[in-house]
Amino acid sequence: MLLESYLQDTWVVPTVAESGAVDVHDAVTGERVCRVCSQGLDLAGAFGHARETGGPALQALTFHQRADLLDAVAAAVRARREELYVLSTRAGATLDDARYDVDGGIRVLRDYAARARTVLPDAPHLVEGPAERLARGEDFLGVHLVSPSPGLMLQVNAFNFPVWAPLEKLAQALLAGLPSVVKPATPTAYLTERLVRIVTDAGVLPPGAVQMVVGSVRPALDLLGEQDVLSFTGSAATAATLRTHPNLVARSIRFNAEADSVNAIVLAPDVTPGSPLFEAFVREVVTEMTVKAGQKCTAIRRVLVPREHEAAALDAIASELAGVTIGNPAAEGVRMGAVVSLAQRDDVRRAAQAIAESGRFVHGDPQKVRLVDADPERGAFLDALLISADPEASAPHEVEPFGPAATVLAYRDTGHAADLLARGRGSLAASLVGDDVTWTTAVVRQAAPWHGRLHLLDSVTMTQTTGHGSPLPALRHGGPGRAGGGSELAGIRGVVDLMQRTALQASPRLLDSLRTTHAGPPAHSA
Amino acid sequence: MLLESYLQDTWVVPTVAESGAVDVHDAVTGERVCRVCSQGLDLAGAFGHARETGGPALQALTFHQRADLLDAVAAAVRARREELYVLSTRAGATLDDARYDVDGGIRVLRDYAARARTVLPDAPHLVEGPAERLARGEDFLGVHLVSPSPGLMLQVNAFNFPVWAPLEKLAQALLAGLPSVVKPATPTAYLTERLVRIVTDAGVLPPGAVQMVVGSVRPALDLLGEQDVLSFTGSAATAATLRTHPNLVARSIRFNAEADSVNAIVLAPDVTPGSPLFEAFVREVVTEMTVKAGQKCTAIRRVLVPREHEAAALDAIASELAGVTIGNPAAEGVRMGAVVSLAQRDDVRRAAQAIAESGRFVHGDPQKVRLVDADPERGAFLDALLISADPEASAPHEVEPFGPAATVLAYRDTGHAADLLARGRGSLAASLVGDDVTWTTAVVRQAAPWHGRLHLLDSVTMTQTTGHGSPLPALRHGGPGRAGGGSELAGIRGVVDLMQRTALQASPRLLDSLRTTHAGPPAHSA
Repeated sequence: MLLESYLQDTWVVPTVAESGAVDVHDAVTGERVCRVCSQGLDLAGAFGHARETGGPALQALTFHQRADLLDAVAAAVRARREELYVLSTRAGATLDDARYDVDGGIRVLRDYAARARTVLPDAPHLVEGPAERLARGEDFLGVHLVSPSPGLMLQVNAFNFPVWAPLEKLAQALLAGLPSVVKPATPTAYLTERLVRIVTDAGVLPPGAVQMVVGSVRPALDLLGEQDVLSFTGSAATAATLRTHPNLVARSIRFNAEADSVNAIVLAPDVTPGSPLFEAFVREVVTEMTVKAGQKCTAIRRVLVPREHEAAALDAIASELAGVTIGNPAAEGVRMGAVVSLAQRDDVRRAAQAIAESGRFVHGDPQKVRLVDADPERGAFLDALLISADPEASAPHEVEPFGPAATVLAYRDTGHAADLLARGRGSLAASLVGDDVTWTTAVVRQAAPWHGRLHLLDSVTMTQTTGHGSPLPALRHGGPGRAGGGSELAGIRGVVDLMQRTALQASPRLLDSLRTTHAGPPAHSA
Repeated sequence: MLLESYLQDTWVVPTVAESGAVDVHDAVTGERVCRVCSQGLDLAGAFGHARETGGPALQALTFHQRADLLDAVAAAVRARREELYVLSTRAGATLDDARYDVDGGIRVLRDYAARARTVLPDAPHLVEGPAERLARGEDFLGVHLVSPSPGLMLQVNAFNFPVWAPLEKLAQALLAGLPSVVKPATPTAYLTERLVRIVTDAGVLPPGAVQMVVGSVRPALDLLGEQDVLSFTGSAATAATLRTHPNLVARSIRFNAEADSVNAIVLAPDVTPGSPLFEAFVREVVTEMTVKAGQKCTAIRRVLVPREHEAAALDAIASELAGVTIGNPAAEGVRMGAVVSLAQRDDVRRAAQAIAESGRFVHGDPQKVRLVDADPERGAFLDALLISADPEASAPHEVEPFGPAATVLAYRDTGHAADLLARGRGSLAASLVGDDVTWTTAVVRQAAPWHGRLHLLDSVTMTQTTGHGSPLPALRHGGPGRAGGGSELAGIRGVVDLMQRTALQASPRLLDSLRTTHAGPPAHSA
């Protein structure tokens, strides 16, 4: 029952007594799925293996050769994705939810592989040019060399994307020449464990390129060095603890945080209730509330509507939510499954109640839910909760129910809407819905500095959008302030950000030599 | 005697009793220059003024209009630079040192103005393209919008570049649309005060675009918000304190650190003693030891030489140092002046002694110095100190004498040289000196991840170089690990890094509209 870790190319069991481990329960049935513990694991040995074996093997490859590894991982996961779909139901996920997680991860790998072949050279490093003359003479030139760091990436992941998150980070890390040590969140560790098993069974990566520690990695933070990267996804509170860790601070260790935020959607005044664009807005809200039972860091929590359309918006969203079937994610016709655990359900209840203090529940009851093929006492189920609240209250902007809940807030005018957006104090994503270019442009100007991504829905994009909540490889994922201040994806920028950029001052013949220096024979053939 | 601060467009005196202030002394004569204190200053008012008046005025301008401000500041400083040269002697600086600081600052402003006009659009924000199709349809496109943050830059500066540092940061901040609040280091605060007086007397900047707080800004750290940037230059210890400040952590406030590091120069085995390239190497070392009396964050502290050339290198450097006249920086023929204070002199003595424990002083005596026109008891003078030490000892790689001191360390082979470089645990800059392209390329590959900049000196570049120690606008300034992990300059990248990058998902017509949205009439005409 103790989940194994994958260290130094071997599956290992922690040496702890059973009593020292944490139980992980099935979100639907409450049965115990596994136990999790990292006691007795040789994390120093794992880090050494990453730096001394995995890193050199990856760094000897060119970007194009590393891209081949991404495709090989994608193929391995695709070949066994059904296993992951099935296992995902234990975390409360419907098949659509599981596909979002699993197929989404495969897509990031393939996208990055293609991007690397197109944009990056067939060399182990990147020379950013053109060369610039640095002095009066013609032969003292400057460029930037982007080269692999001889360190590792420690992934500390959130529970909600046990497949997508490790693969998304792995794609960028592999291309950057960084070996990865993956630490999954406890509630869904068994899914990441299966993922790593699928990848390592396939034998497509060089030894040491990926390892996994199940359980706490707190003691390992003292083992990180100047060339390592800590890539964190999770709560703002944990981000703050990691960011101030004495070893990270003393060594200026690169730290990327992607924290939850209170994301918003704004309906423009020009969108008439009942119009196709209004319907698209309603669908977007309901999708964000229900996909993965609202457990997405990008999910919409605040729905800003013009005062004159508040009643219509509440009606339309509530009516759409009434058609959402909730229950056992494996059962026919179920559109929304469970949240990940009973503790998570209780957190969402508390957060939703706090927001509703300045208003009311328009749809759903935090204490009750009608289910198909599931027991509301044993499973971590929640009704979809639509709240109407006072836009001037603080809770709707500061409290995040990390589940199927959203709050409608009425705004007076455009300036008020922009002010309300900023009260989230930094978000991953916001959607602006409207056809009036002047209005949208004005709100973009004010809202952009507070957001990592703005999704602009109009009558043209509404039929083509990939949706408010979907991070895309081409676009920055991460936001300022409360969202953690980090950046992932954004195309090749996400790879370069994991490498070291060094200014080079050199003669033309030396620059030529650096541009044409390729890797030796690959240290490992996939 | 109390130095004034410039807040809310007015020169203000702190309200403190004289006893609460810190004395600043002349580095050459020991006389009191001024007293420094920030008690009773309205920092909240100053921050509000920056955000509500300075920021909006700058953000309403296009990049090209902001570039005009840079040129106007450069012209104002140039017109009165003699005042700064003269005042610099009180900090121990020779005329050449003062020019390095003052003219260097003017050059950065002009370079950035030209760069902005060439590279950036005549618009208040930047659209990073080309637009990428995000889905199967042709009308759902992605770009990144780089827009000004509605916050401020708090500059916390080091004592060694009282003019260059505030101007260098001001150039990037103004272009980014960020108002600045400058906090000079106490020992040379009177120089930055004069600089700010010159700029504000000229009336070339919009109200609120630049302010200055003389004295401590510690209480102001609680006043920073999500849209602000803290740009720090100074010691690693202070960087760590700032980085872990609860308000900075809670709000993910952007923090850039540029800390001192133990920078190195490496002589390649192919460079024969006595050859022109060898002489260039010797000149580079001596220049770095003596310019600004070695008080540069980029200055060479470790001189790595092949074992077989160790004696020749020590001889040549010592012989060159013997010709350096030290004394009153205003006196004829003096090449090296004083360090900034008696406390700084004592720190350098202690650090040099610690390094010499595994070796010896080859040139100079930390306790004695022959001076021209100055009193060794009253002034903060030091002899140029050349140390020979054991490369395996830790002090040479970890202890930095921030003054006219360097340590020669002999290496066995290329791998050993690269290992020694990495023992600095992250540096701002290193020089590699040699004509053997294969050797240089190999060392670059290993050394690049540990450095912000590599200066490659060969027989071609040696006559054209701007020197090991000079940060250039085109190139990244900042290094990993011990050097603080930050990045400044690097061309327009230094501007973009101060702005918010937001992914935009939009229809083609909306993107067209955003690209063509220009500023209204400038809020202030320069």
